[in-house]
Order: sequence, then C-alpha cells, then structure tokens
Amino acid sequence: MAASCVFRLGLVCWVFSLIFCDSAKLSPPNVVILFADDLGFGDLETYGHPTSMTPNLNQLSASGLQFMQFYVASAVCSPSRAALLTGRYQTRSGIWPGVFIPDSTGGLQHNEVTIAEMLKAVNYQTAIVGKWHLGVGQGGKYLPTNQGFDEYYGIPYSHDMCPCQVCFYPDDHCFNDCDVQYSSCPLFHNGTIVEQPTDLLTLEQRYTAFAKSYIARSADGGKPFFLYYAYQHTHHPQFASKAFRNTTARGTFGDSLAELDWSVGQVLQQLRDSGVADNTFVFFTSDNGPSILNQNRGGSAGLLKCGKGTTYEGGQRVPALAYWPGKISPGRTLSLASSLDLLPTVANITGAPLPAGVTLDGVDMSEMLFHNKASQRQTFIYYPVEPNPKVGIFAVRYKQYKAHYYTQGSKLSGSSNRDHDCRNSAPLTHHQPPLLFDLDQDPGERYDLSVDKEYSALLQEIAAIKEKFEAGMTWGKAQMNGTDTKVEPCCNPGCSPFPSCCKCGTSGVNFIQV
Amino acid sequence: MAASCVFRLGLVCWVFSLIFCDSAKLSPPNVVILFADDLGFGDLETYGHPTSMTPNLNQLSASGLQFMQFYVASAVCSPSRAALLTGRYQTRSGIWPGVFIPDSTGGLQHNEVTIAEMLKAVNYQTAIVGKWHLGVGQGGKYLPTNQGFDEYYGIPYSHDMCPCQVCFYPDDHCFNDCDVQYSSCPLFHNGTIVEQPTDLLTLEQRYTAFAKSYIARSADGGKPFFLYYAYQHTHHPQFASKAFRNTTARGTFGDSLAELDWSVGQVLQQLRDSGVADNTFVFFTSDNGPSILNQNRGGSAGLLKCGKGTTYEGGQRVPALAYWPGKISPGRTLSLASSLDLLPTVANITGAPLPAGVTLDGVDMSEMLFHNKASQRQTFIYYPVEPNPKVGIFAVRYKQYKAHYYTQGSKLSGSSNRDHDCRNSAPLTHHQPPLLFDLDQDPGERYDLSVDKEYSALLQEIAAIKEKFEAGMTWGKAQMNGTDTKVEPCCNPGCSPFPSCCKCGTSGVNFIQV
Repeated sequence: MAASCVFRLGLVCWVFSLIFCDSAKLSPPNVVILFADDLGFGDLETYGHPTSMTPNLNQLSASGLQFMQFYVASAVCSPSRAALLTGRYQTRSGIWPGVFIPDSTGGLQHNEVTIAEMLKAVNYQTAIVGKWHLGVGQGGKYLPTNQGFDEYYGIPYSHDMCPCQVCFYPDDHCFNDCDVQYSSCPLFHNGTIVEQPTDLLTLEQRYTAFAKSYIARSADGGKPFFLYYAYQHTHHPQFASKAFRNTTARGTFGDSLAELDWSVGQVLQQLRDSGVADNTFVFFTSDNGPSILNQNRGGSAGLLKCGKGTTYEGGQRVPALAYWPGKISPGRTLSLASSLDLLPTVANITGAPLPAGVTLDGVDMSEMLFHNKASQRQTFIYYPVEPNPKVGIFAVRYKQYKAHYYTQGSKLSGSSNRDHDCRNSAPLTHHQPPLLFDLDQDPGERYDLSVDKEYSALLQEIAAIKEKFEAGMTWGKAQMNGTDTKVEPCCNPGCSPFPSCCKCGTSGVNFIQV
Repeated sequence: MAASCVFRLGLVCWVFSLIFCDSAKLSPPNVVILFADDLGFGDLETYGHPTSMTPNLNQLSASGLQFMQFYVASAVCSPSRAALLTGRYQTRSGIWPGVFIPDSTGGLQHNEVTIAEMLKAVNYQTAIVGKWHLGVGQGGKYLPTNQGFDEYYGIPYSHDMCPCQVCFYPDDHCFNDCDVQYSSCPLFHNGTIVEQPTDLLTLEQRYTAFAKSYIARSADGGKPFFLYYAYQHTHHPQFASKAFRNTTARGTFGDSLAELDWSVGQVLQQLRDSGVADNTFVFFTSDNGPSILNQNRGGSAGLLKCGKGTTYEGGQRVPALAYWPGKISPGRTLSLASSLDLLPTVANITGAPLPAGVTLDGVDMSEMLFHNKASQRQTFIYYPVEPNPKVGIFAVRYKQYKAHYYTQGSKLSGSSNRDHDCRNSAPLTHHQPPLLFDLDQDPGERYDLSVDKEYSALLQEIAAIKEKFEAGMTWGKAQMNGTDTKVEPCCNPGCSPFPSCCKCGTSGVNFIQV
C-alpha cells in the first residue's frame, strides 16, 4: 500500500516536472548587447588599466566570463557594427570602405538579416538605444526601425560627425574637432528627430532611462526582448553629465568611461529589479580599439600594438564580458571568439532559426559559454578598414599564431605614435613571407617568427586557410561611396540656411525618470 | 542579586579582556616579503596579461591590496634589493653603478641597516631564501648571515651569472646566454656552498620547502619571524621543475611564472596551516621591470613604456600586493608607494625602532594600508642604473606628474624595441625643460606636456623638489668597481683548473619534504 502511494506520488511529480520543464524550455531568454565605442583592450580595470575606475564593469567581469582574445570584425565603427548584427564580414554585407557619414546615401541593405530581424521571427520585442551608424538613407530607409528594431532612441552616427559645442557641465567646450560642415547631431526616436542639436550633457542619462524603461516594460509585458545598447561613450569628443564631470583620475576620457560604467550598472540592476536577470544573456564589448589619435583623451590598447584603424591587435582585439547568472560560470577564457559569433549564439539560445540561405562567418559559442568546452573558432580573418577586393585579407589568425600578409598604419592610431608601424605614414606593405607572431607568447606582435624555418609548414597551412576563405568571399556592393546632402538628417526639412537651420527643441519625448 | 551577578560577571569579563588584549598587543606580527625577479608591471593576470595564468597570485590580489603605482628604487637587481632592505636609495648605500657580478669584491656595507637587522634588535627570527645579490666578498663577508639573517638558503646572485646547461625537465637546454667565464652557480646554506652547480630543475621546489619548513619551525617556536623570499623566477634563463614544464600558453616564461605562482600559494597555505596567517604581514612585489631583451622569453610592462634598465615607467613600476587578513582591506589603490617604504612600515607594525642616525628615503605606509588613508608619499625620485653624481637624478614623480630631466635607453629593454627611446642606441639625453607627463591620464608616457605654458609653475615646483633632494644626497662609496677571482664562490677552494673544478654534489642539506 505504502509502495503504491510512493509510486503514485512519484508519477504525479514526474508529470508536474514535465510540465514545468517544458514551460521553462518555452520561456526564451532575453538578450542584452552592450556595445561601447572606441573602448580599447586595456581600458578597463579588469584588463589592467592602472587609473580607470569601473566598479560596475568589475562586478560584471567577476560575475561573468571575461574574454582575453575576443575580436571585432573591423577596426572602425560601421563595418564592426554590421558584422556584429549580421554575423557576416562587412565585405559580404557591403559596409565598406570606411564608415558612414551624415550625408551617405548607402546603408545596411534590407536583404541583410540582423539579430533583431532574426529574433522578430520568433516573436521577440526588439529595441536599440544609442549609436546606429549603419546608414540613414533617403527617408530614413536604413534606420533601425527598418532593420528589425521595434524601437530606436539615439544618434544614428558618431557624435563627432556633427558640430559640437558643450561636452561637460555646465558649459565646457568639447576637446576634439567635430565635423562642422554637417547638420548638428540629431536625436531620433524611431524615425523622427526629437532634438537637434542633441544635448550631450543629458544624453547618457536619457539613453539609460530609455534602456531601463524598455526592460521594465518588456518584463511586465511577458514577451522576450532583445535590447541593443550601442553607447556613444567613450568615443571622442568625450562628454559626461554633471554627476561624472571631474570625477576620475583619467580626465575627460575617464569621466566618459565612468558614465558608461554607471549606465552598465543601471541596466544590470534593472534586469534584477524586473526579475529577469536569471533569464537574460548579457554581452558587453566594444566596436574597435582605442583612438590613439586623441592622445590623453583617447583609450588604451594596453600591451597590444597600435589601435583603431589598424589590423594589429590593438585595432581589433577588445574587452568582452558574457554574463548569465546560473548559466555562464564566472571566469576568464583564452578561447578565440568574435562579435561575428553573437548572431549564431543568440540563435541557439533563443531557438530562432538562422537566416536562410545566408553565408555566416560566426560560429556558435554556446558550448564554450555554457559548458566550458573549447571554442569552435580556430581562425580569425582581418580585413582593413578600407578593404579592396584586389588586395583582400590583411591578416589571418590561426590558433595562437597570426600572419600579416599586409600591414598599414592609420591616422586613428596617432601620427606621433612611438611605434612607427602604427602611424598614418606607414604605407600599405606586402609581406612575403607574411610576418608571423605567436600571440600567446607575444601578444604585442613584437617578434617576427617568419624567418625561422621551423614555421614553414605552419605558414603553408595558414596560406591554405587564407586561399580557401578568399575563394568563398562574395563581395557585397560597397555602400560608402555615395553622398547627398538631401539625406542629411534635419528636423526642419527644406529649411534655409542649411544645415544651421536644422534646430529643434526637445519635442516632449523624454525618458528621464529621476 | 541577579544585578550583582551580572556586575560581577561583567567585571571578570573586563579583566579577562584586558589580559587578552594586552597579550594580543604583545604578540608582534610576522613579516613575509615575496620578491619576484624581472617580473613586469603587465605580467600577472590581475594586471591584465591576456595569457598568464596565476591562480595563487589572483587569490592574493583578491584578498589583499593591489598597488597600481608602486615603484622600486632601481631598474636593475642589486640596487633595487639594497633599497628594499635598507629603505635608502642605492646612491646612499653605495650599491652603484650597475649590479654585482660573481667576482665583485664589494657588497652591502655592514653599517647599512637591513630590515633583518632592524628586526633582530626586537628579537625576531630572520631568514632569506633565494637570490641575495648584495655581494659575497672575501670570505663571504657580505653574505646575508652577516647582514641580519639567521639563515640563508640560495644562490647569492642571478643564475645567468654562471654557466647554465639544463633549465627544463628532463634535459632541455637553457634558452639564454649565461656567463660561462665564472664558476657554476653555487647554492649556499648560510655561509657554506652545499651544491655547485645548482640543479635548477629542483631549485624552486627546494626553496619552497625551505620557506615552508622555516615558517612551520618559527610558528612552533613561538618567536616572531621575518622571511625574505627572493625568487630566481622569472629572471632569464627561465627554468621550471617537471610539474611546470610545458604547462602554460606563455612558453618558458609562463612555466617559470607558473612555478613562482605555485610557490606563493604554498607559502600562503603554510601560513594558514601553521595558524599564523592572521598575524603575518605579507608583501609581494618585483625587483624591476621586464627584461625586454629576452623577447618572447622576457616579461611584459603592459601599457608602460620600455622596461628593465630604464627610468621610464616600465623599468621601475612593478606589481605589488599587500596581504594581512583582517588588517588590510581587499581592494586596489592608486596611491604612490615604493619598496623604500617597506622598512619604515615594518618598523611601525613590529614596534622595532628605526635605524638610528640614518637618512631614510621611505615613508611609513601604515595609515594607507590599515586605515585606507591617503599615502604620505607624493614624490618619487628616479636614478639611472649607472648613476653619476655629476648627472644626478634622471626623473622626478610629483603627484600624478613625472618630469624627465635625463633619459637613456638600455640594452635590457631590447635592441629592437619598436619604441626607439627604449633601445640601447638611445643616448643619454638632457631635457630642458624636462619632458613632462601626466601619468594618471598618460601612464604610457606618450604625450609631453612641457611645451604647454600651463605647466610652467608645476615645473618650477618639481625643480625645487629635485634641487632639495640632491642637496640632501650623500653618495656612498661605489661598491661595484672592484673584482677579484679569489672571491668567486667555489665549493672546492684552491682547486685547479679554476673555475671548472668548482663542482660538488649535494652535501646532504636537502629541504625537500615531498
């Protein structure tokens, strides 16, 4: 009789657990991508910067998985962002050469599938706050709301691509040159400009308020959500609101970084407050290496060579942190990984089908993230910021080795860099045999191994990888070449004198909830 | 009645607590200094190195106070060690120019007071294990047992200053040149050579066993102790025992670092096992910056400029960790501090009187360490590795600024360094006005501010500090100039042919307890 009771109770429990497990399986996780701008590999406390102060990112590092060999697909903004959102090299998606400017007529083509579009197909809510930088186009046709995002709140490009006046409370000037020939920075809500020029002194507070509000709304609504928070921080000209002005040892860069750090903390707290932290995959990284051009006001690549604009490690290896309480074990990984890998990883964890009929360059990181397995990625391909089909790949990483077939300096890595290889004056140079570095032993790319015969078989192996990859590369039509002032965002269309007449006050859309 | 009982019990408790507190006050803390060799600012995981693996030093960083602006008094071994042990610049103590070699006749003079001598005066037991490098001299008169240490077990100089053959298990050669003209590396126990050549494959295991045994013996004996563990790791030629061979991503340097890390963990565990961890002040640091000359087999200064041998930050800013459970709050400090400060700090915490009639260059760090107060140190003076009374100070750090009056490259920072300022070919150069850097904003010393008139008052202030310091500098007689093969350590005195005849097996002194 007792045995029968145990059996029956066991059966009931089993049925309940089946229902519970099924329902757990059916509750898809939320996805939050936090994307810093021009933040270098060496800029965070947990990546060794001696005077940065980033308590919230420290906490994220300590609670999550810290990547030491994470790469973005380009050393400048637009192509890096395209690659993150599509899982495809910018050469395929056409986001080359260089970056979009306010009057670019091109943009991310509608046949490209973004993470947002992929997640819409499985009933996610989607939003982007911050810097888009994948085109505006005629009638805003390339804006995020036409690329899978339900909502958008932000400046659609870099905030140095418009005249800048006040960067620090109450009225301190901006320290870097801004592009005065364009209309002042437009703040979009969805397809509408709600403020022009954008008030930088309150911008991050408003971005953060939007992000928090979006998380709270989405959690309340019970639908899974994707939030892509693309920070303007720490790109030049650095800015910060009153609370962060003159609060750090690193000066204007430090103040900008402190506000970024605060905002990350706010987002994480909102996830906890909304009860969704345990069901949200959070990924923090940066779009490219530091702008060394900006000297003391630029970031730091730490021990890596050069910075933004180059295919040296300083240009494309960036900080990266993955966080999901209970799913991702805290720690540090030396595994190779890339922003290209986010789309396939998100597909796996959300159950969204991968974009159909599309060549992807990313690999699913799930086994590495959730089961501490080795990374599937053994190779990473480096294209320059102005790729050329006739030149092709600049460098190949294979396991711990990196072979540079071409190198070139960049003005973004400083005209006075002590390492002349980084400077704008370092011309396009072909290397045969390629320069070869062991990045495990020599992350600073100082000691060329190519002259050592011991490595000739390895160089052949890498050459074969390069050849195969290039044979499989179908170049998308370059989107950066056309410009037309008619597409330049203006809140007052047709006004005169253009562009100085493009000025509108805040139109009542205000997400600050303080 | 009940109230009276409470009163009487309370009185008894109060008397007991008085006795207990007094006895606690009367139990002086132990002191353990762990001193790595040629370990750079960027070499540990917690200082941002991407491929180092240092779990025990991670634990020490997380449980202790991590210094981000800690300086040694010289960019090479001997003077740095002299300054640490005496709290005085090497220019005062005569430990200049350069470093001791095996046949140097000089050494640390007996009128210099080491931390060990200071602590002997208050009844401490004292021991050193590892690399001494402050002279041997005629009849071993400069060895540690004549400088306040009860016991010594180690090689009295760098292990590249003797012929080296086998560095890795079972019989792999050493990767760097060693000085073949001298007698092979002598392993001393107190004043006696117990093994020559020293077996590097078991050395660190034996050092560690000695250190553990010393802690256990001292704790059992109940007398307070001072242990100065001066590692041969990670100096070239790197070596490692069987357990650490080919275990790391960083190759030979990584294997050496892994064994250092293991040893630190063993020492800390022994402190716990012996029940004295809560009453022991532990300080970990390095003698100077990385030997960039050794390329992939040298260390890393991280984002700092140049390395060993220079007065740039990479030469003299090093990792530093202070640990004392319950007394030092875990965290990170940007406070200025120096190895010169250890002697006055140890004096304060042990109650030992400071050396009488001696000019000290260190300041007591206690308020900073134990009460999170600001550092008393606002200034740091940089002397070159071969100081010259006619040239004097090379650089002055004042608050966040550093003024370089003279700069010079060093072969130890690499003849092929991409930064030409670091190379041996960079000559002694006088700067008027001095080069000026804001190290909080520009730790890499990239952007000279001296041309900006805004800083002229600051430069005057720094010039006054320099002038005052130089006026107070009494140069000790240089100890590095005399050599005599008769003082070269040989276990078989008078043998022929010298020095190859200086060979003896292990004489039975063996501290391995495995």
